[in-house]
Amino acid sequence: MTAQYGLTAIGNAIVDILAHATDDFMKAQIQKGMNLNSMNLISAERAAELYGLMGPATEMSGGSAGNTMACFASFGGKGAYIGKVADDQLGKIFAHDTRAIGVHFESAPLVGGKPTAQCLILVTPDAARTMNTFLGACTQLTEDDVDENLIAHSQVTYLEGYLFDEPKAKAAFFKAADLVKKHNRKLALTLSDPFCVVRYRDEFMSLVENHVDILFANEAELKELTQISDTDQAIEALRGKCDIIAVTLGEKGSAIITANDTLRIAAVAPTQLVDTTGAGDSYAAGFLFGLTEGKSLQECGRLGSIAASEIISHMGPRPLVALKSLI
Amino acid sequence: MTAQYGLTAIGNAIVDILAHATDDFMKAQIQKGMNLNSMNLISAERAAELYGLMGPATEMSGGSAGNTMACFASFGGKGAYIGKVADDQLGKIFAHDTRAIGVHFESAPLVGGKPTAQCLILVTPDAARTMNTFLGACTQLTEDDVDENLIAHSQVTYLEGYLFDEPKAKAAFFKAADLVKKHNRKLALTLSDPFCVVRYRDEFMSLVENHVDILFANEAELKELTQISDTDQAIEALRGKCDIIAVTLGEKGSAIITANDTLRIAAVAPTQLVDTTGAGDSYAAGFLFGLTEGKSLQECGRLGSIAASEIISHMGPRPLVALKSLI
Repeated sequence: MTAQYGLTAIGNAIVDILAHATDDFMKAQIQKGMNLNSMNLISAERAAELYGLMGPATEMSGGSAGNTMACFASFGGKGAYIGKVADDQLGKIFAHDTRAIGVHFESAPLVGGKPTAQCLILVTPDAARTMNTFLGACTQLTEDDVDENLIAHSQVTYLEGYLFDEPKAKAAFFKAADLVKKHNRKLALTLSDPFCVVRYRDEFMSLVENHVDILFANEAELKELTQISDTDQAIEALRGKCDIIAVTLGEKGSAIITANDTLRIAAVAPTQLVDTTGAGDSYAAGFLFGLTEGKSLQECGRLGSIAASEIISHMGPRPLVALKSLI
Repeated sequence: MTAQYGLTAIGNAIVDILAHATDDFMKAQIQKGMNLNSMNLISAERAAELYGLMGPATEMSGGSAGNTMACFASFGGKGAYIGKVADDQLGKIFAHDTRAIGVHFESAPLVGGKPTAQCLILVTPDAARTMNTFLGACTQLTEDDVDENLIAHSQVTYLEGYLFDEPKAKAAFFKAADLVKKHNRKLALTLSDPFCVVRYRDEFMSLVENHVDILFANEAELKELTQISDTDQAIEALRGKCDIIAVTLGEKGSAIITANDTLRIAAVAPTQLVDTTGAGDSYAAGFLFGLTEGKSLQECGRLGSIAASEIISHMGPRPLVALKSLI
């Protein structure tokens, strides 16, 4: 059956609040338990405290899978997004930015509960980003939000590892995985974050072996998942556990691993390196756009590199120019 | 008496929602009555309609005088801001961004009324910006918000012409002007927008002649105020009506007009021309920072040019680097 959508993504629907931070600022926060260059889950109270300490910021819709969908649509792909915002100003911003780029987004907003999720992102002078997420309304994403019709009509369904951090969202995750199998579609997973892998290593490995067709990971996540500190050995340990494994390697590009082959894809140097927020999300978008358009794996990787190059050249995780204009 | 603050500004406290727009998009909106490259006051209904048509956006605190204060603080100046936000998510963002850069901001937020003001800004391929403002909570700025203590202790009080668009805010404006005189401080005014000058020409001229010490205007505003279409003749018509008149001339720089002299200040070419939103606001900030630091008028103008150059090199009206690092 021809699919109406190339890609449907399910993730935590988040508005990013981005600010530059000095190394001294980060040192003080690390003392308070912040994990540098990672995603930190924080409470509403900690979010208020940290926001009060941060410099002036810029707001932009974010969320890992949401960024991927924005990039996918920016390449010209047709897609849908499932995620939970609240019925508040930030929720309206997220919904606007998602729909404005042509992504189908009809998840019912949460009324009368927690606010829309916010991610306080600190961008350091080396362009690395440390994320501090208050999940808010995302904690109320449930199985009921997983629209079978969307998954049945999407070539690929893409899930965030981050969803595992909330029990209801995790149940939604597994429902989606089951529906993908039922409708004979493809399942893609991003491991999201090394600390996220630490939290759910065994479950992620079981998912990769039993459900996932296409896996996205960076080096740190790959090493955490396999518990092997050498990248090449970690790749060999994972090879064949699912059809395609795309490992992003920062400025070294990426590696695409299938049962019998390893393709090395070069990075595309950005015009300027400003903020790496969303680099992995955009790579996945380019890769999956290529895949759903029937391109070779080499070309899929190249599209991933092109997308990531645009994203890291400016503050914020979503493209400022139409990615299709860069192909 | 030594002033505790260099500058206190009073203005409409607004969060900007910035998106790129094509010329075709703008043509369709001009048909609906939008004034290109100007500030359009819009209703909540029109804001919802226009937002629904706009592309994905970035949010950033704005407001003309708010932008000026952010730039003034970024130069290292000590200042305060008076403006009305609502007790909502966008209001918290505005308050954060204002305080985070060191500006005193303690205006009580509006509770249970209209939302924080939003400005839908469409940036066209020529880097010009067309603003569409829903004033929301700003309509409830009143004389009670004008803190005499701040004005008494500020070398200069800076007012937006935009305040005239709401009767209560206009009353607050005149209260501030009276307090400046009472405490023997200086009053600065920006004419804000050519259409704003059309709406209040006679009152603005009376203000300039009787209250204002330092006037900021661009060419279009100058011509509207004087009703003279030749810039040099318009300058002569206005010369001496207040101590200092700073006229911004875009890429031609600016002219500083005193009773007996005209100084020509060169523009500073931006690294790239992206978005002119906030150019005039940042020029005023640099100029007033210089003035409150006792610099020559030539140097004041140069600081204005430096600030404007940084602002127009990126999306959004507030600096992305510390302006003091550019001196």
